[in-house]
Amino acid sequence: MSVLAQSTMRAAVVVAPDKPLEVRDVPIPTPGLGEVLVRVITSGVCHTDLHAARGDWPVPPKADLIPGHEGYGEVVALGDRVTSLKVGDLVGNAWLWSACGACEYCRTGWETLCEQQKNGGYGVDGSFGEYMLVDERFAARIPEGSDPVEVAPILCAGVTVYKGLKVTEVKPGEWVVISGIGGLGHVAVQYAIAMGMRVAAVDVDDDKLELAEKHGAEVVVNAAETDPVAAIQEQIGGAHGVLVTAVHPKAFAQSTGMARRRGTVVFVGLPPGDFPADIFSTVLRAITVRGSIVGTRQDMAEALDFYARGLIKPTVHVESLDDINDIFERMEEGKIDGRIVMRYADA
Amino acid sequence: MSVLAQSTMRAAVVVAPDKPLEVRDVPIPTPGLGEVLVRVITSGVCHTDLHAARGDWPVPPKADLIPGHEGYGEVVALGDRVTSLKVGDLVGNAWLWSACGACEYCRTGWETLCEQQKNGGYGVDGSFGEYMLVDERFAARIPEGSDPVEVAPILCAGVTVYKGLKVTEVKPGEWVVISGIGGLGHVAVQYAIAMGMRVAAVDVDDDKLELAEKHGAEVVVNAAETDPVAAIQEQIGGAHGVLVTAVHPKAFAQSTGMARRRGTVVFVGLPPGDFPADIFSTVLRAITVRGSIVGTRQDMAEALDFYARGLIKPTVHVESLDDINDIFERMEEGKIDGRIVMRYADA
Amino acid sequence: MSVLAQSTMRAAVVVAPDKPLEVRDVPIPTPGLGEVLVRVITSGVCHTDLHAARGDWPVPPKADLIPGHEGYGEVVALGDRVTSLKVGDLVGNAWLWSACGACEYCRTGWETLCEQQKNGGYGVDGSFGEYMLVDERFAARIPEGSDPVEVAPILCAGVTVYKGLKVTEVKPGEWVVISGIGGLGHVAVQYAIAMGMRVAAVDVDDDKLELAEKHGAEVVVNAAETDPVAAIQEQIGGAHGVLVTAVHPKAFAQSTGMARRRGTVVFVGLPPGDFPADIFSTVLRAITVRGSIVGTRQDMAEALDFYARGLIKPTVHVESLDDINDIFERMEEGKIDGRIVMRYADA
Amino acid sequence: MSVLAQSTMRAAVVVAPDKPLEVRDVPIPTPGLGEVLVRVITSGVCHTDLHAARGDWPVPPKADLIPGHEGYGEVVALGDRVTSLKVGDLVGNAWLWSACGACEYCRTGWETLCEQQKNGGYGVDGSFGEYMLVDERFAARIPEGSDPVEVAPILCAGVTVYKGLKVTEVKPGEWVVISGIGGLGHVAVQYAIAMGMRVAAVDVDDDKLELAEKHGAEVVVNAAETDPVAAIQEQIGGAHGVLVTAVHPKAFAQSTGMARRRGTVVFVGLPPGDFPADIFSTVLRAITVRGSIVGTRQDMAEALDFYARGLIKPTVHVESLDDINDIFERMEEGKIDGRIVMRYADA
Repeated sequence: MSVLAQSTMRAAVVVAPDKPLEVRDVPIPTPGLGEVLVRVITSGVCHTDLHAARGDWPVPPKADLIPGHEGYGEVVALGDRVTSLKVGDLVGNAWLWSACGACEYCRTGWETLCEQQKNGGYGVDGSFGEYMLVDERFAARIPEGSDPVEVAPILCAGVTVYKGLKVTEVKPGEWVVISGIGGLGHVAVQYAIAMGMRVAAVDVDDDKLELAEKHGAEVVVNAAETDPVAAIQEQIGGAHGVLVTAVHPKAFAQSTGMARRRGTVVFVGLPPGDFPADIFSTVLRAITVRGSIVGTRQDMAEALDFYARGLIKPTVHVESLDDINDIFERMEEGKIDGRIVMRYADA
Repeated sequence: MSVLAQSTMRAAVVVAPDKPLEVRDVPIPTPGLGEVLVRVITSGVCHTDLHAARGDWPVPPKADLIPGHEGYGEVVALGDRVTSLKVGDLVGNAWLWSACGACEYCRTGWETLCEQQKNGGYGVDGSFGEYMLVDERFAARIPEGSDPVEVAPILCAGVTVYKGLKVTEVKPGEWVVISGIGGLGHVAVQYAIAMGMRVAAVDVDDDKLELAEKHGAEVVVNAAETDPVAAIQEQIGGAHGVLVTAVHPKAFAQSTGMARRRGTVVFVGLPPGDFPADIFSTVLRAITVRGSIVGTRQDMAEALDFYARGLIKPTVHVESLDDINDIFERMEEGKIDGRIVMRYADA
Repeated sequence: MSVLAQSTMRAAVVVAPDKPLEVRDVPIPTPGLGEVLVRVITSGVCHTDLHAARGDWPVPPKADLIPGHEGYGEVVALGDRVTSLKVGDLVGNAWLWSACGACEYCRTGWETLCEQQKNGGYGVDGSFGEYMLVDERFAARIPEGSDPVEVAPILCAGVTVYKGLKVTEVKPGEWVVISGIGGLGHVAVQYAIAMGMRVAAVDVDDDKLELAEKHGAEVVVNAAETDPVAAIQEQIGGAHGVLVTAVHPKAFAQSTGMARRRGTVVFVGLPPGDFPADIFSTVLRAITVRGSIVGTRQDMAEALDFYARGLIKPTVHVESLDDINDIFERMEEGKIDGRIVMRYADA
Repeated sequence: MSVLAQSTMRAAVVVAPDKPLEVRDVPIPTPGLGEVLVRVITSGVCHTDLHAARGDWPVPPKADLIPGHEGYGEVVALGDRVTSLKVGDLVGNAWLWSACGACEYCRTGWETLCEQQKNGGYGVDGSFGEYMLVDERFAARIPEGSDPVEVAPILCAGVTVYKGLKVTEVKPGEWVVISGIGGLGHVAVQYAIAMGMRVAAVDVDDDKLELAEKHGAEVVVNAAETDPVAAIQEQIGGAHGVLVTAVHPKAFAQSTGMARRRGTVVFVGLPPGDFPADIFSTVLRAITVRGSIVGTRQDMAEALDFYARGLIKPTVHVESLDDINDIFERMEEGKIDGRIVMRYADA
């Protein structure tokens, strides 16, 4: 990599599930066949990064993991056979770092379900370092004119809620409830409005509900004060779709109740535990409950396009790579408002 | 009703939730505007009739209810303004006895969700009597050449599983698991085969699994002996759809596990309790869980058409109206194999 | 009808295909079972009214026809068995005056295809008179606060283009071409924008294209000066959907060329002649061409809801019933800009 | 390629549009990155091969083209980085020889519309030779137990009509008309039956109609003797879908007339000329007309699976590579019954 003056970079590395990440110097990776090396400019911090660092899930991440899958940067070197990217292009990494391209899911536009997929900042090193590798075929193409800080959360939070909204199958003019107006939810409100949906927002924090209103929600319910099921049924006759971004078990239990007959409830988070759906009511009211996980490259391109057209403006706070352990702490305590983006360099 | 020589009929009447039905003489009803009087020839007995008689559900049935919503018979008199039926026509009643025709569900082909609907053998008297009323617009038209006994279960069991299979969205050539091969399940296997699906059957009774094989199931799993989740994943890589006709809580818990990624699990029964879906796996695997309730008039016409073409042959046992309390007893004990049809008269 | 002080009303009557309409006194009709009498306040004039008056179509209209199917007014009397409307309610008539409620199309949410349907201002007298009858089940419910003049064109032009846009299957964020920015097209631009679509407008008149831009079109092409196929392919890579409201044969020939691969072209007009689609290109590019006709009651309710939320503002010119023959003349000459609404009374 | 004892092979080569193919010795190709070398055992002959050889289409094929895209054979050598195939595997080539894997069509399960696609036997040499190259990602995997001769036509004729039937959106139990019972049509009848559809067959040859009946068609119409539009409307009330495999302009003009309201007409052939759809009737009856081209890898896997389950049996005639010019001659004269398969070697 003679193009770079240096051979090492600063990165936040997972050393053990029960220990803080170590921010240290590690070798800059070399792009293989079909891969590009990216100088990372910003990276969002997602709840999934915390799960990865803590080893919360059945399949463990790679050793000495560098987390991060909301990384934005500039291509600085190309591996063999790269044809569609060049040095200087602006790209992002994603949770869906690559997929096999040939299985039944890849063949049918559902590559997010590929069983051979690699995940950015989990099975492959991610964007919590000054450089990262990206697969040419799966690199998110960043639209010209994007803000380096604001665009980062689109790469996971944005595409995740956008896809979640799509699979609610809510049509323009119909109602969607966004349950939970945090890092994902406040972006979801904006996508829903841009998609022509009417939005009802449910949270337990009045400030967040106010933000939802600012972004276009017509109905807001503070679930700490009012039964959201009764309120939503009364005010809008139930919603055609419900997007659950909240992780509180209570939010799950309420979600089907807020749906209109034949409505669809979509979960985009990955909390542990069971989903307490009442079967009698689910059958009688023909409710659909559906899980959704991130988005495909097509969803990503669309989600970025909505952003590029000025329709989405995530609430972001800029911090630095050295803050990562502190960020995780605040995340665990539920103290983060909007999305944290770490900035490593100038664009 | 001068057309009839008599003014009373034999019928099974619900007198109290905790008492047996009384089979007694009651007045023959008079058809109102848009209604027809039907001489009932046969009537299937459905689990829902038992729920109705026992008062198991939140909304109580009408007083002095005559249950029954799988009734087949002949039109003997017409109410005012009936234009599409004539005396002698063969019709059936259905759980969806009528709907408003104008709400958002009726307008969009989802009349089964109409909040003004009336239910046969619940809110309106049904087919457990020698005569019944049917709404002209909602009378099931019985295809010529139908067997009076065999066709009865199509009117509820048949249309219910047929609609349930439709909303699994399983395409011809894809796999569906039928979980529970009882009164509903053994009919479901036949509809699935007729719809071009490949069928895996799961039950705890080898005789029922043998019946499923006879009807075309390629894979059978006895869940009392083998873990059906492991077996289905191993043998067919998971199913594109799972139709749950079983009412055992264990069957619910297993249902999502038997689905392939992006698969759809459909419930058609109305048992009490929660549905214990693991959220992590539902999201990560993008599973859809959906309730389905009976079928519309269009579903009914289609379900009857499959029957009329000789593709569906329910296992039926003929009994008489006087057996009703004994039938209910056996039903509660899970001792009924296939479907019981009560016969009142010759065709 | 003792509620009315008078027994006759002014109406425009078709006396012969080749003669002007006669505006004369005719008896006020009496509402039958399930019908209501409506005092008409405004009525839009649609191209279809002209076809009806001229007898352009294979099936002739009723004798002494009063055309008009964009009528807005107030319920003044109820026929027997009307339960969902009361005197004073604001309603509209529609081209889909009634449908049978029981055929395969009515059962599946496609009542616009019912072969027993009656059409307002064609098989049944319409809104070109001071009073009209409306079927309770098919009366368009006018949202509170609607402007009597502006809302009239929603009843046909609005619902027609709204439904046409729905069946393009264009998703929010995707491109639709509106071909022809006249009475239908300028409303179509507004619905498309409200549905989250991106709009390219094609017309031969710069004023109309300017109006399209005012309503949110991002791309405009004057087809008199520029080849629209080349322009649309170049500027947006082809459209996901094309809504053809223009009646010029050239517009038809260009429509598939403006579509992106797998795009859908929808026709909403009823001109005579063949559609000259090139088969090789249609197959190779997997283009879909689809006809769409008015909309169902559900489409109507939705179209009116978009209007009621302030998202649609038709360009209207108020005239009077006595102008009808002059209006028709200008319509034939293509001289009408936006939509003509005749006003008979105060709201 | 030391694995092979020889360095040349026999192949049929296009030398000029107006000349016969030359069957001569040419070098055996060497598999590149991600490619495999296949010893061809059989190859079907498709109408498209004739178009390729004659240079009928706007974009010319490669120089010295070896046509053929229904080739079946055995992998004998692997290029670099091939991981999912091994020597001895049985594979087929296809019209969709490869696609880019990254464009909006490839990302969404519509790789058949990829603008970077390469076509077997057109832009890349095909199966009219004893060896051919196949892209690992796009090689059709031949199910165990397949007959080398019968399986060949599945690779293009089979997948083309199977996909065409899918995009008719005809559901199990609904009617499809197969217009033209030739090489494609007689296979289409079998797929339709296997997909649970009811089939009406239209042709001008009684022998072909008899074959259709043998494969399960319930209604047959000889269009040389009876008006198929009237016959289909009368006998089945119009079809939910119409698959047009015939290339006669008359067949096109009749296709929309045979459809039921809201029906879908699908074209799978590539004849020159316009499609004469009557607009008035298309709009009023909400007809959809759609082009469909071959199928994706997923469609191929499914089409082969139906074959492997014994549900599809193409009528085939075995000939040899040296017959190719004679085969083309008979094809041009419309004298071929079923499908010609050339056999080069033993399996």
